[in-house]
Amino acid sequence: MENFYSADSVNDIEALVDKALKLKTDPFVDQSHKGKTAVLLFFNPSLRTRISTQKAAQNLGMHAITMNANQGWKWEMEDGAVMKFDTSEHIKDAARVISKYADVVGIRAFPGLENRDKDYRDEVMHAFMKYAEVPLVNLESSILHPCQSLADLITIRETQSKKKNKVVLSWAPHPKALPQAVSNSFLDWITKTENELVITHPKGYELNERFTKGCTIEYDQAKAFEGADYIYTKNWSSYEDYGKILNTDESWMISQDKMNLTNNGKFMHCLPVRRNVVVTDEVIDSENSLVFQQAENRVYAAQAAIHSLLSKSI
Amino acid sequence: MENFYSADSVNDIEALVDKALKLKTDPFVDQSHKGKTAVLLFFNPSLRTRISTQKAAQNLGMHAITMNANQGWKWEMEDGAVMKFDTSEHIKDAARVISKYADVVGIRAFPGLENRDKDYRDEVMHAFMKYAEVPLVNLESSILHPCQSLADLITIRETQSKKKNKVVLSWAPHPKALPQAVSNSFLDWITKTENELVITHPKGYELNERFTKGCTIEYDQAKAFEGADYIYTKNWSSYEDYGKILNTDESWMISQDKMNLTNNGKFMHCLPVRRNVVVTDEVIDSENSLVFQQAENRVYAAQAAIHSLLSKSI
Amino acid sequence: MENFYSADSVNDIEALVDKALKLKTDPFVDQSHKGKTAVLLFFNPSLRTRISTQKAAQNLGMHAITMNANQGWKWEMEDGAVMKFDTSEHIKDAARVISKYADVVGIRAFPGLENRDKDYRDEVMHAFMKYAEVPLVNLESSILHPCQSLADLITIRETQSKKKNKVVLSWAPHPKALPQAVSNSFLDWITKTENELVITHPKGYELNERFTKGCTIEYDQAKAFEGADYIYTKNWSSYEDYGKILNTDESWMISQDKMNLTNNGKFMHCLPVRRNVVVTDEVIDSENSLVFQQAENRVYAAQAAIHSLLSKSI
Repeated sequence: MENFYSADSVNDIEALVDKALKLKTDPFVDQSHKGKTAVLLFFNPSLRTRISTQKAAQNLGMHAITMNANQGWKWEMEDGAVMKFDTSEHIKDAARVISKYADVVGIRAFPGLENRDKDYRDEVMHAFMKYAEVPLVNLESSILHPCQSLADLITIRETQSKKKNKVVLSWAPHPKALPQAVSNSFLDWITKTENELVITHPKGYELNERFTKGCTIEYDQAKAFEGADYIYTKNWSSYEDYGKILNTDESWMISQDKMNLTNNGKFMHCLPVRRNVVVTDEVIDSENSLVFQQAENRVYAAQAAIHSLLSKSI
Repeated sequence: MENFYSADSVNDIEALVDKALKLKTDPFVDQSHKGKTAVLLFFNPSLRTRISTQKAAQNLGMHAITMNANQGWKWEMEDGAVMKFDTSEHIKDAARVISKYADVVGIRAFPGLENRDKDYRDEVMHAFMKYAEVPLVNLESSILHPCQSLADLITIRETQSKKKNKVVLSWAPHPKALPQAVSNSFLDWITKTENELVITHPKGYELNERFTKGCTIEYDQAKAFEGADYIYTKNWSSYEDYGKILNTDESWMISQDKMNLTNNGKFMHCLPVRRNVVVTDEVIDSENSLVFQQAENRVYAAQAAIHSLLSKSI
Repeated sequence: MENFYSADSVNDIEALVDKALKLKTDPFVDQSHKGKTAVLLFFNPSLRTRISTQKAAQNLGMHAITMNANQGWKWEMEDGAVMKFDTSEHIKDAARVISKYADVVGIRAFPGLENRDKDYRDEVMHAFMKYAEVPLVNLESSILHPCQSLADLITIRETQSKKKNKVVLSWAPHPKALPQAVSNSFLDWITKTENELVITHPKGYELNERFTKGCTIEYDQAKAFEGADYIYTKNWSSYEDYGKILNTDESWMISQDKMNLTNNGKFMHCLPVRRNVVVTDEVIDSENSLVFQQAENRVYAAQAAIHSLLSKSI
């Protein structure tokens, strides 16, 4: 693996899940990258990603240097720009400089949710992959969140009773306009496994076809839930009417009634979650809720990814 | 010890002071928790606490992951809340998630000084103690600062010439409304030692009876100082007229004249201190000032506390 | 070396360059300060300095505790001040306290660019050198940036084909008013080597005589470049008309035409740089550009400095 940007970065997803599960049983087993440095840059707030990735690096015996990058400078993205306005460093220079200090670099950079084309170009990540001399870990970009998705696959693997499950990605209401990254990324990864996927959301919330191609979309949430083994829940703002909230219909909240339609299905969410808006307390606090297991697996997802990047394996 | 929240958390205060003093003579002596992780969350600015606790963890061979938590999210405190407003994560979820990454968690969360009942419920700390699966270190809550108080007791132990000292907690003026946490906490801890305690402050500055019960309150500062072995100075805003400044009377500043009334008394303050408002340069710079020794002992207080939590001892 | 504040702090600059180059070939060779602590305080944004200094400390086996110090408190600088206004801690107390936690302290504190006398007193650094009980590393003060300058000398040493080079410090345009620290500091260090120095800038941009004394100033940029081996480029705001932008004349930008006047000269800049304002893409992306080598050498400059401070050598 050269970069950990999307599911396509990985040569063998199942092998990466295997590696993560092995690291979970013994986090310190491999110290072959001891003393190396991970530089983690956050343009946006982070709790889970920040702590879990730092811990992943430390489990490998590495140093983690973590920085907020949201104040003090703005990166120029355009090649050949005359930088007389508000950008103080070109991203190609930043990428090269950080390469001198890091063995692997992680970046979080959320979308603006105003200009769809710009957001979907995912410029910060692509610039780093182009210019940095060390591998990149995508810590949530404008459109993808592979560390989360790998943790999700690890969690499904740990809890599944059969190889082919019915997995439902369900939209749920939320008072704020959220990115599509977690949902896109879940599709990106889950569709490369043996599972069957159904997407359910109100009309107007269709995700980018690049991620939904070949997936079943079922606008009737109850019907989608029938016989499901996993309900993966997430709010996202509209892709079509980009970045907008079209609907806050409470009837889309995940409740026990709906979970009762499933095949004793497990509830999944990446967190943070708005309780009693996205999902009822009853569901998230039930035995079928996997949310804390997902959170825990973030460590081993990041650890497997970083290890594979530095070992040029998987 | 299960959590390090208040003096009542500790089974044997003198034994904890002993442990801290032993660690001070050899900070690296015990590496039995090497490789474990302390996650330290700061909702408010911190210099001493942040550096000393990080160093304490590192002395134990642990990793310290430190985060500012004052931007980017607001925690929901109410059970069963419908989270459609400004809170983006329930504290019970945050507590459980951080438990997956940390062996011990430290939190700083100051009071708002507007709603006394709310502040004195100390909700963030109690929620973490309820929901987190790992021990908590209180890095200064709305009402308590046990890391400081333990450091204070260590400093008294190091400098005392007899077992039972006259210790005076003296209010002093300050231009800003400050919390009562350091003062409450000092009372909480010192009253569990053999020392005699006298509190002195202008009328209207009476602290919460939970902490002052059984203590002598002397409104005449000069009289309180007579024969004192230790003068512990701190400003606090009113508990009665909650969060208000009732008095900035310069005559309450600690001066050498007042120190001359004591039994060659030592001067103590938790820092930061407003010089020539709270205390004169002459007193704080005198040989009898213990303020830097207190600051240094913050490391060993935190180290003893974290070690005891992880070892389930004392 | 007692502090790493300016070129005058160093007993033997060439020996310090030698040490840095030795560390570059084997960064982990000397672990004699393993387990010690560097506290790094940033009053201003930092990318290169923050990461490279942290890495330098970690290469030495040390712990690096890094903090933003730009919010939450303001330090009192004046001796004897009655602190009833906006300062919450005296710098002499902060310096002494940090000394209890750190074996070496690094501080970044930029100038205000409004009051020249105040800026040139460089109060934060001098107060720390006076009051801290541990050595100081200047991570860029109001007027000096020795970590950068040492990295610059290392880079010149690595790339020079002769011992005495013609080195030109050239002003270049910039849309914002920048400090004089990098330029002052480069003069401070380079003039203590065997190289010949020429300064070129538009009239009105004369730097403080303390740094330019004995240097050749050539107002004709083209003439200055003739036969030069190194072109060190930097914008600075006016010292005379303090902190002001007097000129944004594009003709002062470093272009290939100008580089062609040199003796196959190398291009140097401390980064971050405004491309196509300070320098053309063509020049900074050419084989003669040393900017990334300078950035990389920041690690070994900081590492050599910290090691010398802790070893009381060089």
